[in-house]
Amino acid sequence: MAIITLTTDFGIVDEYAGLMKAAILAVDAAATIVDITHGIDAQDIRQAAYSIESTYRYFPDGTVHVVVVDPEVGTERAIIAAAASGQYFIAPDNGVLSLVLTSDSPRAIVRVENQTYFKDAVSHTFHGRDIMAPVAGHIGFGVPLDQMGPEIVLSDLVLDHSFRSSSLPEGQISGTIVAIDRFGNLITNISETQLQDAVNMEKHKAGVRVLVGEHGIGLTQRYADVPLGSPLALIGSRGYLEIAVNGGSARSKLNIEKGTPVRVCCLNNE
Amino acid sequence: MAIITLTTDFGIVDEYAGLMKAAILAVDAAATIVDITHGIDAQDIRQAAYSIESTYRYFPDGTVHVVVVDPEVGTERAIIAAAASGQYFIAPDNGVLSLVLTSDSPRAIVRVENQTYFKDAVSHTFHGRDIMAPVAGHIGFGVPLDQMGPEIVLSDLVLDHSFRSSSLPEGQISGTIVAIDRFGNLITNISETQLQDAVNMEKHKAGVRVLVGEHGIGLTQRYADVPLGSPLALIGSRGYLEIAVNGGSARSKLNIEKGTPVRVCCLNNE
Amino acid sequence: MAIITLTTDFGIVDEYAGLMKAAILAVDAAATIVDITHGIDAQDIRQAAYSIESTYRYFPDGTVHVVVVDPEVGTERAIIAAAASGQYFIAPDNGVLSLVLTSDSPRAIVRVENQTYFKDAVSHTFHGRDIMAPVAGHIGFGVPLDQMGPEIVLSDLVLDHSFRSSSLPEGQISGTIVAIDRFGNLITNISETQLQDAVNMEKHKAGVRVLVGEHGIGLTQRYADVPLGSPLALIGSRGYLEIAVNGGSARSKLNIEKGTPVRVCCLNNE
Repeated sequence: MAIITLTTDFGIVDEYAGLMKAAILAVDAAATIVDITHGIDAQDIRQAAYSIESTYRYFPDGTVHVVVVDPEVGTERAIIAAAASGQYFIAPDNGVLSLVLTSDSPRAIVRVENQTYFKDAVSHTFHGRDIMAPVAGHIGFGVPLDQMGPEIVLSDLVLDHSFRSSSLPEGQISGTIVAIDRFGNLITNISETQLQDAVNMEKHKAGVRVLVGEHGIGLTQRYADVPLGSPLALIGSRGYLEIAVNGGSARSKLNIEKGTPVRVCCLNNE
Repeated sequence: MAIITLTTDFGIVDEYAGLMKAAILAVDAAATIVDITHGIDAQDIRQAAYSIESTYRYFPDGTVHVVVVDPEVGTERAIIAAAASGQYFIAPDNGVLSLVLTSDSPRAIVRVENQTYFKDAVSHTFHGRDIMAPVAGHIGFGVPLDQMGPEIVLSDLVLDHSFRSSSLPEGQISGTIVAIDRFGNLITNISETQLQDAVNMEKHKAGVRVLVGEHGIGLTQRYADVPLGSPLALIGSRGYLEIAVNGGSARSKLNIEKGTPVRVCCLNNE
Repeated sequence: MAIITLTTDFGIVDEYAGLMKAAILAVDAAATIVDITHGIDAQDIRQAAYSIESTYRYFPDGTVHVVVVDPEVGTERAIIAAAASGQYFIAPDNGVLSLVLTSDSPRAIVRVENQTYFKDAVSHTFHGRDIMAPVAGHIGFGVPLDQMGPEIVLSDLVLDHSFRSSSLPEGQISGTIVAIDRFGNLITNISETQLQDAVNMEKHKAGVRVLVGEHGIGLTQRYADVPLGSPLALIGSRGYLEIAVNGGSARSKLNIEKGTPVRVCCLNNE
């Protein structure tokens, strides 16, 4: 039985997510459909890229992931489907799969063009419902990827390499707050591996400082490692550096918004 | 296996939607339950009527749709179940099925009265959980509609004909903004067919103007047909006229709220 | 086929609820997962305790309920699993199951410690995904509770007896607003049974008054028993006393917030 996930910026007030599910069930009434989130900020491709990248690996092999953040719907932008890391991905070709498809080399990528697998009538404004959802239903049902359209390669895709943080000289890292969660945790694009390199360079964790806004924050492992109300930086559940406040909201305590730059550096160089 | 959908004004912060699902699964543990939306504005029967009308046809035949916007719960208002367009509908008899049941002639309508299919104890304030959800479970499981109560006809129902827009002389149409979506698109109750009549009368699309608030807006087919930041009017994914802003929010750009009148007319008559 | 429910304070903007579902499906791809709510206010254990207590009984026997409101994640607080009232419950040992486990004597309680049933790598910040969800998947799949860790008894648990309201002399009751729903209904922790005792003491319902803020409100059975716009108090669908306004919001009309004390008393003693 197919498992199909949805990651969109549709919100849940309108019926758009429900329509995606209808279009999937119309193809495969036995599919299990899982909402990853419909709460991506409208048209924030980077936020969606990190959301799917930090989630897909927890699903069983063969899961089909549909990611619809699609500001260019109705233009000539392509729709792509890919097999990678034992799973399937369907999305507009706008960079939203940049992280998923470059972290592990994809087994196959196709441009989705075969209208046999689309809704009979395709609107100009909702390709999620009319193309991506039914295609996901067919892939989940077992139709081979290469039936969906011509095979392409990674270099044919729109990839946004600016989504990732950069390692700088002397163990420094330059990143960004890419999401802020409900608890006010500030989630960066600085990965555990990158951070480990910085820690290694500095010899010990105590020498590493996370700089965001006016604040310099030390690394720790758990919220409870600092007093209630104090800020901390730790590798969060995504596997990326997060800035939090024990028992509080880093967003409001530190007054930081999405998109704020973050720098990891070292006491020696501060 | 039954597919049962939910369209309500419960929101998703409270446990009410979860309770509907519990009550369905208590009848048919194998049912697939799909949220269309729980984000209908509290007690907005018209908004719910358009939401279900623009969604149900995407589901497989035999799907059971439960629509709970029920300001009169606890009064003598009836609950109805209907078979129409190859699907089933259950709702309070308050007009929320006005559009679904008048756009295609229903095969059968019953007044839901047979307590055999209700929860053992029925509260005064939550008939969604105690009556409509279990009845939906039974219908999805295959219990015939006529087991639920006495058969009635369309003219017995509360129908609200004011939900629809009106065609006026000389190809003009008078409608309303019935919903505003997450992207700030203003969704009207003016259908593609009605609009086509106006276009035909005017001979060409360029002569048609959509008037809302202080604004007169031209018809187009895609967001990208106008410059970024400009307003446009097009047939949206619902099959109704929508007013949008390319790359922005029509709600904030045009400063228009739900309920605002919309008029379609023609350059000649403007 | 297993039914597994989720009650959390994760919200639905982030991917956390989706990750819980991934972790369950990775164990049991055929599980039916139901959101009770992800809208518990951040870290409000009492609100979650009432939410699950008023919901679980509507699910089929054998349902597995996962409740994740977990301010102490990463500390030494335990995770518990219990069999009670024909259902299963998994939660941090922080009092969130206080109501469920004390209203009916549990058949068995264990401290969840057997890492065989955890994710291979357990984060310091998201035990919902890494421990509770996979354990729920295994329990739903049929692994006996006693495989999860050592059996404990009720008196070993963190229980918060302050969640419940208190019966005072002369039929009075002292309670609190523990939740406010989307419609602005003020939901108390005063149960129907307690209220009945007060009514019996007073001989008739008309003598009972519900005092909240500056307001004294009479008991009724249905919203429609008072004029539109008037406040009323009734046993709501949870089986607890609620304060509502017919056709309006008690929250805004009476200007009352969560946590406000409520007193039931009698005209004689007012």
